[in-house]
Amino acid sequence: MWGGRFSSRPADIMQAINVSIGVDRRLWAQDLAGSRAHCRMLIDRGIVTAADGAAILSGLDTIQSEIEAGTFPFRDEYEDIHLNVEARLSELIGEPSGRLHTARSRNDQVALDFRLWVRDACDRTIAQLSALQHALLARAEQHAGDLMPGFTHLQTAQPVTLGHHLMAYVEMFGRDASRFTDARARMNESPLGAAALAGSPFPIDRHATALALGFDRPMGNSLDAVSDRDFALETLAAASITAGHLSRFAEEIVVWMTPMFGFASLPDDLTTGSSIMPQKRNPDAAELVRAKTGRILGSFVALSTVMKGLPLAYSKDMQEDKPPVFEAMDALDLALTAMTAMVTAFTPNIARMAEAAGWGFSTATDLADWLVREADLPFRQAHHVTGAAVKRAEALGVGLAQLPLKELQALHPSVTEAVYKVLTPEASCASRQSFGGTAPEQVRARIAEWKERLA
Amino acid sequence: MWGGRFSSRPADIMQAINVSIGVDRRLWAQDLAGSRAHCRMLIDRGIVTAADGAAILSGLDTIQSEIEAGTFPFRDEYEDIHLNVEARLSELIGEPSGRLHTARSRNDQVALDFRLWVRDACDRTIAQLSALQHALLARAEQHAGDLMPGFTHLQTAQPVTLGHHLMAYVEMFGRDASRFTDARARMNESPLGAAALAGSPFPIDRHATALALGFDRPMGNSLDAVSDRDFALETLAAASITAGHLSRFAEEIVVWMTPMFGFASLPDDLTTGSSIMPQKRNPDAAELVRAKTGRILGSFVALSTVMKGLPLAYSKDMQEDKPPVFEAMDALDLALTAMTAMVTAFTPNIARMAEAAGWGFSTATDLADWLVREADLPFRQAHHVTGAAVKRAEALGVGLAQLPLKELQALHPSVTEAVYKVLTPEASCASRQSFGGTAPEQVRARIAEWKERLA
Amino acid sequence: MWGGRFSSRPADIMQAINVSIGVDRRLWAQDLAGSRAHCRMLIDRGIVTAADGAAILSGLDTIQSEIEAGTFPFRDEYEDIHLNVEARLSELIGEPSGRLHTARSRNDQVALDFRLWVRDACDRTIAQLSALQHALLARAEQHAGDLMPGFTHLQTAQPVTLGHHLMAYVEMFGRDASRFTDARARMNESPLGAAALAGSPFPIDRHATALALGFDRPMGNSLDAVSDRDFALETLAAASITAGHLSRFAEEIVVWMTPMFGFASLPDDLTTGSSIMPQKRNPDAAELVRAKTGRILGSFVALSTVMKGLPLAYSKDMQEDKPPVFEAMDALDLALTAMTAMVTAFTPNIARMAEAAGWGFSTATDLADWLVREADLPFRQAHHVTGAAVKRAEALGVGLAQLPLKELQALHPSVTEAVYKVLTPEASCASRQSFGGTAPEQVRARIAEWKERLA
Amino acid sequence: MWGGRFSSRPADIMQAINVSIGVDRRLWAQDLAGSRAHCRMLIDRGIVTAADGAAILSGLDTIQSEIEAGTFPFRDEYEDIHLNVEARLSELIGEPSGRLHTARSRNDQVALDFRLWVRDACDRTIAQLSALQHALLARAEQHAGDLMPGFTHLQTAQPVTLGHHLMAYVEMFGRDASRFTDARARMNESPLGAAALAGSPFPIDRHATALALGFDRPMGNSLDAVSDRDFALETLAAASITAGHLSRFAEEIVVWMTPMFGFASLPDDLTTGSSIMPQKRNPDAAELVRAKTGRILGSFVALSTVMKGLPLAYSKDMQEDKPPVFEAMDALDLALTAMTAMVTAFTPNIARMAEAAGWGFSTATDLADWLVREADLPFRQAHHVTGAAVKRAEALGVGLAQLPLKELQALHPSVTEAVYKVLTPEASCASRQSFGGTAPEQVRARIAEWKERLA
Repeated sequence: MWGGRFSSRPADIMQAINVSIGVDRRLWAQDLAGSRAHCRMLIDRGIVTAADGAAILSGLDTIQSEIEAGTFPFRDEYEDIHLNVEARLSELIGEPSGRLHTARSRNDQVALDFRLWVRDACDRTIAQLSALQHALLARAEQHAGDLMPGFTHLQTAQPVTLGHHLMAYVEMFGRDASRFTDARARMNESPLGAAALAGSPFPIDRHATALALGFDRPMGNSLDAVSDRDFALETLAAASITAGHLSRFAEEIVVWMTPMFGFASLPDDLTTGSSIMPQKRNPDAAELVRAKTGRILGSFVALSTVMKGLPLAYSKDMQEDKPPVFEAMDALDLALTAMTAMVTAFTPNIARMAEAAGWGFSTATDLADWLVREADLPFRQAHHVTGAAVKRAEALGVGLAQLPLKELQALHPSVTEAVYKVLTPEASCASRQSFGGTAPEQVRARIAEWKERLA
Repeated sequence: MWGGRFSSRPADIMQAINVSIGVDRRLWAQDLAGSRAHCRMLIDRGIVTAADGAAILSGLDTIQSEIEAGTFPFRDEYEDIHLNVEARLSELIGEPSGRLHTARSRNDQVALDFRLWVRDACDRTIAQLSALQHALLARAEQHAGDLMPGFTHLQTAQPVTLGHHLMAYVEMFGRDASRFTDARARMNESPLGAAALAGSPFPIDRHATALALGFDRPMGNSLDAVSDRDFALETLAAASITAGHLSRFAEEIVVWMTPMFGFASLPDDLTTGSSIMPQKRNPDAAELVRAKTGRILGSFVALSTVMKGLPLAYSKDMQEDKPPVFEAMDALDLALTAMTAMVTAFTPNIARMAEAAGWGFSTATDLADWLVREADLPFRQAHHVTGAAVKRAEALGVGLAQLPLKELQALHPSVTEAVYKVLTPEASCASRQSFGGTAPEQVRARIAEWKERLA
Repeated sequence: MWGGRFSSRPADIMQAINVSIGVDRRLWAQDLAGSRAHCRMLIDRGIVTAADGAAILSGLDTIQSEIEAGTFPFRDEYEDIHLNVEARLSELIGEPSGRLHTARSRNDQVALDFRLWVRDACDRTIAQLSALQHALLARAEQHAGDLMPGFTHLQTAQPVTLGHHLMAYVEMFGRDASRFTDARARMNESPLGAAALAGSPFPIDRHATALALGFDRPMGNSLDAVSDRDFALETLAAASITAGHLSRFAEEIVVWMTPMFGFASLPDDLTTGSSIMPQKRNPDAAELVRAKTGRILGSFVALSTVMKGLPLAYSKDMQEDKPPVFEAMDALDLALTAMTAMVTAFTPNIARMAEAAGWGFSTATDLADWLVREADLPFRQAHHVTGAAVKRAEALGVGLAQLPLKELQALHPSVTEAVYKVLTPEASCASRQSFGGTAPEQVRARIAEWKERLA
Repeated sequence: MWGGRFSSRPADIMQAINVSIGVDRRLWAQDLAGSRAHCRMLIDRGIVTAADGAAILSGLDTIQSEIEAGTFPFRDEYEDIHLNVEARLSELIGEPSGRLHTARSRNDQVALDFRLWVRDACDRTIAQLSALQHALLARAEQHAGDLMPGFTHLQTAQPVTLGHHLMAYVEMFGRDASRFTDARARMNESPLGAAALAGSPFPIDRHATALALGFDRPMGNSLDAVSDRDFALETLAAASITAGHLSRFAEEIVVWMTPMFGFASLPDDLTTGSSIMPQKRNPDAAELVRAKTGRILGSFVALSTVMKGLPLAYSKDMQEDKPPVFEAMDALDLALTAMTAMVTAFTPNIARMAEAAGWGFSTATDLADWLVREADLPFRQAHHVTGAAVKRAEALGVGLAQLPLKELQALHPSVTEAVYKVLTPEASCASRQSFGGTAPEQVRARIAEWKERLA
């Protein structure tokens, strides 16, 4: 289509490896928005006449209608979304269409379209993270005082509350959202007007197009504008970290739902059955959320590898920027939605969790702390005495709270009857009043704080 | 569709995250092949009657025709290729269709289908690598004696021949092909009959189905058969290493084609133009080949991350095994085809390469080696003398071959007129007669060897 | 040290980024072996005199003694292991040392040393995998008939035996070992004699040095010999896949050891305590094995990224080949050893596992299969009836084996008292007699097979 | 050392896989700072007596002196930096040392130490990026008006100035620095006081310790505080993106230094020679900078993989967080320093660059733009005419500026003599006056802006 010099048509393999319309057609709305802003600026600066400009804008409207109606003729022969739109514009309005590309190149055009798409994706993700946090806050409030075992190494460590556990994820997803917010702010500069790589000799107004497209300002270097994809990499990194957080929660849901834990269940419409084992209620959604981490991390690796060692300015390698980003952001979209649905719908087995909160000598630390506070033992010594107490309780086949006083006194003479008050899971939880601790008041205070922050 | 227990339909998000028919419909041929083999075995073992079996086989034929004709009703509500086929079979033949799933589960079914697909992909890749090697051999033969600079650090090091350079890639792609061959042999065991995870109580014959599907034997452990995807990971690793080799050659093509090198050109139908710069002949195909490395490496990372830490046996996470494999093998397919086309079509600028082969004191090592051989200097001393000669030549603004004899003798008295014979690129190349060296005879000997090996 | 031309010493940062002796000193044994083989060949071919050669060989022996005794002066100023050895040789034997480097370059020298190291690492890994398989076989034999729940999605699926479960890993590690064997065979060609990149004009005998160093043959192309690191990448890929298998088993150990499962325990000397919670017995070794996957996968990514897009021949980027390989193989070494220790030492809670094997309607498939076999129902219909039976049993709060006959008959009239015989976990396991199935006879047959294979 | 329960010493492999002092001794300064802040708070809150507190603080001072003097006895038997310090403190001051661990666990201690280290690393990186930007600004100013070819696809596209090219990197490194700044702000919350995972029953003041250690506030959830490592992942992602930018510039330096380009040289002290080719001046530093991308990206993958799917709270897997971070940040440190040295020291070959700026019909776009401006052709038509002109010039073996007027007029009648004014590289550059364009005034304006921003 650009004619003049090429003496033969691209070979089939060239066409096959080069064509991107199957992928980049997703940029159509961004492409039209960019072309409109560019066209209006060309008119304002007198580079294109009002009449030609009006014809272009009207043609772009027609194209938008066609795409929305599903009648737009996407054609492989026009390679990508930009040339498809341009070719169609030419069919629709003839000669003036050729003026739209004045002072513009596909290099700045695709940099613009893709940046707009990634910016939109950040906005959507931020909203989804907020919805997930709201869902978590609602469940955390409901279970702010309900006991469960706090695990380290998946071994019982200390009792915590389910609300506290859920609030840990509110913190993580809050940081995730702020990462997308920062990325969005950093990428919010317009590449339009960088042209091929060196800027334009036409008297264009890059500030005007930047403003029209919601950017804070035009990018300050035309080579950089068409060459870099760090905004996409940063977004993928934020997505990957978010996916990591989701994978941890998803793992917990899978673990909580195994009959060996029996901590939680999901409604039928969020589980699946088996083609051969009719009794199964499989946490497929959680497993798929967990698995999405792979695709998203793989996407960061893919684009990082593509960009490694590319000299300035644009290289065709960069056409491979879109598949990893589209796929990763689609995966994250699904994962966040599915996780929000699971958070809202899961039923914890409160009784089972509370029972387990007392297993495994979970209040041993409370005994050690009591010895420090009440008997003035150095912590290390208290730790040693407690270890001996646990060993003795294990030997007797009882819990710490059931260990007779004389057994405890044999280990350290200063132990009194009062110690038993700290050896229940309830007492343990209630005592952890340090800022950010698991005491229900602390958990409720954090919930209140976050509600305000997200309001 | 499996009914009985589920009291509500999957929620929309569950459907959205769970459905895989858009991806796994590519497995249709493998799914039908597996079902046919399974059905025939069920008949042979008397588990299914001849009449029911015939109905099933006929129904599967109909389905194949429908898919080939594009009339098969792929439906999202049936989630994946297996259930789509099963549902259609039920519509086509009614009750007997329900007997096909005897002694089989989706777990072994998908493990089988995917393994068959990956095995086919390995076979295709091996053939493509062979084609690429043949293309390289043809060009290497043509240029076995044509000089070019051998670079290290992209600095001129020693003259080599273009044929020798191309043969380096024949070696690399040969190892790549052998990696796919090894992977194929290792994966060539049948998971069919592992059923859900524990094997089957029906008197099935796993050796028979394995044989029918071209496998060497059935897999020896049913848990392993439905749980592992190492065959896919190994294939992705082989693909990633191959892509790395391709990226190096692609980089060289890009570098050779820059006007600063001017070493090679590609025909118009393997380059593209620019929308704003009419003079451009861009090596897009080479750049895209180079970029595919990203996607392929990213796919290995994606699937490795998915599989990390999954307990036995099947987890739904493993549904995420197919996208990275399909995408990576598609990318490799394109990259190998494009590279083969470029190898066949590129025009080296022989004169320019030969001229550059003499730049940068490229025969300095030959001088050092001469001093060792003829003047019996230890190599380290010869190296030192040569360094001084280069320094002197640089100062005089001449090449080594132009450095007057008295200058050389000032550096070491034993230098004679005879030294100039080794200081031409032609002599340098011709002298490197060690096995695998760049002397044209050696290059031709290697070409002959490879031709025989690939015949 | 190479002198002559360089007018100033490397800047500090140059020294800091360039020096590699801290890393590559690990190659000392390989470096000496390579130098010995090269020296002997130089003598045999008359390139170096017998006297000079003897001096060199004696000097190399001294160096070996010094390194083994810890008295060798490793010096940063000599950058890497090759120059450190060369400098020391010069100090020890003077002038003849300068003749060792005849017909050799650091490019083929480092390619050789590294390849020898990786080959050794493959051999060690193969031996370790064999040891791990032996440990698994011993435990599998012990527990070939002990029941445990077979999980899919971490939900109870069907009963299996612990021996069967362990044998799944024997299969995986068997494939892992064969991957290292294939990689080792493919890399077993000698780069020595490729010299800088083009081969050598000296009448060297590359077949002789190859043979002396245990290689099958010399590499066929000198550019390829100094340029490629695919042998390291393939080894890292095999390591990464192995690490993935280890991570799955490690995850299971962590899960089995949580008090909620209580399936297994490890002796004190393979667990750790807590600095604050004295009762903890943490499966740290299993967790660390699981975590090593990260480092090993990261290493494959690191080296793949380094190699991407490098033009031939040697580039300094390739100095970054060793850290990822050393670190990954060290990590794998630790992980395999730790896993073997855990396999040997873990104590399964047989009673607990057997009890859990009957939970969650784990014999539902057996009911469905009975209906197919005894009542000639199509599997899909049998599956539907079983689903209804599970639903009814859930409602009544009983297991399938406790569901009254009349309840079952209400769902399908053909059910008889005989059905109860298949509804126990023992019967379920025993029935799965298909090749590779979980029936104890099958498991024992596979154990016998593997013992023979590994003998 | 924690005694009481463990009946045997850790097995050797347990010790080997578990010990981390070789790695985490780098955290010593952070560990002491954290202990001091914790101790002072314990004193202030009356949890530890003033006398005991003074003994502890004095002991910590002694330890600091010992470490700084190199006399501190780091011991593998104490596993990590925390226990090494604790054990030494106990040796130094006896019983009061046991009181330091009150209301603290290794879980919050290591989370604190590592966060402090990463925060310091961010600060150092920000300073290094600023130094690199300053170096670039100085060189850009020097060469704001010097011509070079602007490449796309490594094909000549349009003339730019060297200053403009360098300023593109100032933009990239500016965004990189802002990423570290954002990461630093986000991580600047204190985990100390989260204790093992649930908070503490002691009346600790987390705000006080946070303040004392330079944090903005304590973290709001104790489970999150000990469980997450997203601050490290975000830092690695920022490092990876920065490394990608560095790799691109490093690639350009390598390319510019090849004799085929001859665009630039580096002083001897930033290049290396060859052991076999005495004439070489290799851009090793640039290549090593380029290669560091691998290690840094690999580190992000490593830690992401480690964290994937870990249930809350602390798991031992997380001990594998430090090696990738230390190694990546060390690599980035070297790479930034080396790049700054190269930027400062490289000598561009101005004449050669300027000459090349005119090659390859680099002003073709200027001809097309002239036709749009002066002859009112639509850009697409102008593009077509220009393509024909290039084709004609190629056929005649001349540049565009040498194409006779009548040839141009044959292609389009409106061309006049005036066109030749826009066909020089100087005119082309000077005309690109759009904001961020390559016109020297624009470049100088951006330099001024950045100088102010970085002042």
